[in-house]
Amino acid sequence: MLRRHALYPAELRARKRGVYWSGYAPRMDLSVAFLGTGGPVPTALRGTASVLITRGGEKLMVDCGEGTQRQLRRSVGLVQVDEIYLTHFHLDHCLGLPGLLKTYDLNDRESPLQIFGPRGLHKLMQDFQPLIGRLGYHLEVEELHGGDILPHADYEIEAFPVEHRTQALGYALLEDDRPGRFDPDEAIRLGVQPGPAFKALQDGETVAGNGGEVRPGQVMGEDRPGRAVVITGDTLPCRATVEAAREADLLVHDSSFMVEDADRALETGHSTGVEAAEVAAEAEVKMLAMVHISSRYHVGKALDEAREAFECAVAPRDFDLIEIPFPERGEPTLVSGGARRDFARPEG
Amino acid sequence: MLRRHALYPAELRARKRGVYWSGYAPRMDLSVAFLGTGGPVPTALRGTASVLITRGGEKLMVDCGEGTQRQLRRSVGLVQVDEIYLTHFHLDHCLGLPGLLKTYDLNDRESPLQIFGPRGLHKLMQDFQPLIGRLGYHLEVEELHGGDILPHADYEIEAFPVEHRTQALGYALLEDDRPGRFDPDEAIRLGVQPGPAFKALQDGETVAGNGGEVRPGQVMGEDRPGRAVVITGDTLPCRATVEAAREADLLVHDSSFMVEDADRALETGHSTGVEAAEVAAEAEVKMLAMVHISSRYHVGKALDEAREAFECAVAPRDFDLIEIPFPERGEPTLVSGGARRDFARPEG
Repeated sequence: MLRRHALYPAELRARKRGVYWSGYAPRMDLSVAFLGTGGPVPTALRGTASVLITRGGEKLMVDCGEGTQRQLRRSVGLVQVDEIYLTHFHLDHCLGLPGLLKTYDLNDRESPLQIFGPRGLHKLMQDFQPLIGRLGYHLEVEELHGGDILPHADYEIEAFPVEHRTQALGYALLEDDRPGRFDPDEAIRLGVQPGPAFKALQDGETVAGNGGEVRPGQVMGEDRPGRAVVITGDTLPCRATVEAAREADLLVHDSSFMVEDADRALETGHSTGVEAAEVAAEAEVKMLAMVHISSRYHVGKALDEAREAFECAVAPRDFDLIEIPFPERGEPTLVSGGARRDFARPEG
Repeated sequence: MLRRHALYPAELRARKRGVYWSGYAPRMDLSVAFLGTGGPVPTALRGTASVLITRGGEKLMVDCGEGTQRQLRRSVGLVQVDEIYLTHFHLDHCLGLPGLLKTYDLNDRESPLQIFGPRGLHKLMQDFQPLIGRLGYHLEVEELHGGDILPHADYEIEAFPVEHRTQALGYALLEDDRPGRFDPDEAIRLGVQPGPAFKALQDGETVAGNGGEVRPGQVMGEDRPGRAVVITGDTLPCRATVEAAREADLLVHDSSFMVEDADRALETGHSTGVEAAEVAAEAEVKMLAMVHISSRYHVGKALDEAREAFECAVAPRDFDLIEIPFPERGEPTLVSGGARRDFARPEG
């Protein structure tokens, strides 16, 4: 069955804060696989735009340039993506959709697929319709506006308006707060028996202790913020990105040009790597991933230039993976080639 | 300027025979680069259908599956294709067209591009139109019927009807006859002076000798047939292919299934490798290239099975190249990885 998202406006987002994860898993994996890191034209080494966010068993794709289905086959495999988010409808961000949808159909996909994008998505899907034809699974298509929030079990996806030459949205995956750390020694000291009562406290219930009731607040540390991953798509540097990416763990930002071509960036509605780095610095994110770098540049030089403005910048290649652990377990890490199925993690 | 093809029906093809090449070049290269050899769904190693025929400076593409522009970038480079021939409109044979056309535009292509395909091509291009938008170069789109022949300078392209589940054509590149071998010793014996008179004889003119006129027929061997390359696209084994491929140098034939799944081949309008081999044997071609082999099979086994029926069968991989020399210079040769730009021919 298709999960219906009840959209709610950004000003209500605070309601979701303080609501704990329904099934908090302390090791819930969160990673971003780079399926296509290239500019508007694919090169031998870089496909057009697509990233795959994996969170536990859920797979969300952002953008789907031509050849994305094959980039999947060349890396994580033809996984069943649950939701696809398009940032905008320039071909290098969406032309892989018909092929991917048809291939799912050839492979007898049964589970529904949701596709989100800015205003114009219905028109795009109409344009694709003659190519796609009938599918054996349900497709749900929903246009979003900047500020729309899509609640999910333990996180939400926020669409924020970016500034490109066309209707364009960035997307932020924002995990709900996690409960604070449980202090078992303190609980025992207050007379709570290890076992079901411990779990009840961690679930927010009040239990019986030595000297009366023990409330969760007495044995649990402060709430810990969830993780955040923010993906801009193609955009000028803009305020909405800074707001959406505030203290995010990872910001994936358009870095099409180097400073020498800053005027081209402005003309075409893109960013320089340095502008992306300035956004990252202002938003105080942990890591900036620069993508969409024009093939005219030496990537190392583009990266060096951006690192002057924000040190923790990386320029992932196709099939690289960024792993985002909970803060108490480490920093976001770029794993070179980490999205390849045959990837063997170096020892040590 | 766009070269207009005057279509003429197959029964007039004989007229073109006996007409010599306008600019006969004894080393005129002819090769077929395999850009995508996979079945309906791309795999990590095989793209969807596309081959590139290069003849001298001309480049003709047959089929253009998703990702073909990138397959070009990964091999011969983003070359300016002059003409694109679609065998039919299943997505794995044409979905790469919008991306390729747009990329040419981004690269400021100026030379016109011709696209040919069976009935329905105009509808397909209409369907692609919202994706492609305006292009800065001229696109000419022409529907063909089985039997149509497109004359070119020294060769013609013949469209022949194949049997798939939809309107589908195969294409044969048929070089004009070449003049026979010139015998300089005999010309001298007849009193012709080496120099311009030699060339005149080779161009079919009568010149003065010792004992009166010397006619070309006295010093030129028999006409030598041009080369022929035939590409079926997806099809059942059929009579039209046998006729079109008669004594061809290379037949590129649908080989989707192995014999164990012959019923599936029949149901879906495809061929088994053995059927392709039987067509090759009956047509007495020099080499059979098996493509579109389903990823369910071990390619070596599919090849072994087919070779029982036709020995000179090969199963090219993406970026392999088949070179087709004039018969007096050798046999068609499969060059593994030969379409890669960094390909280094083994010594010896």
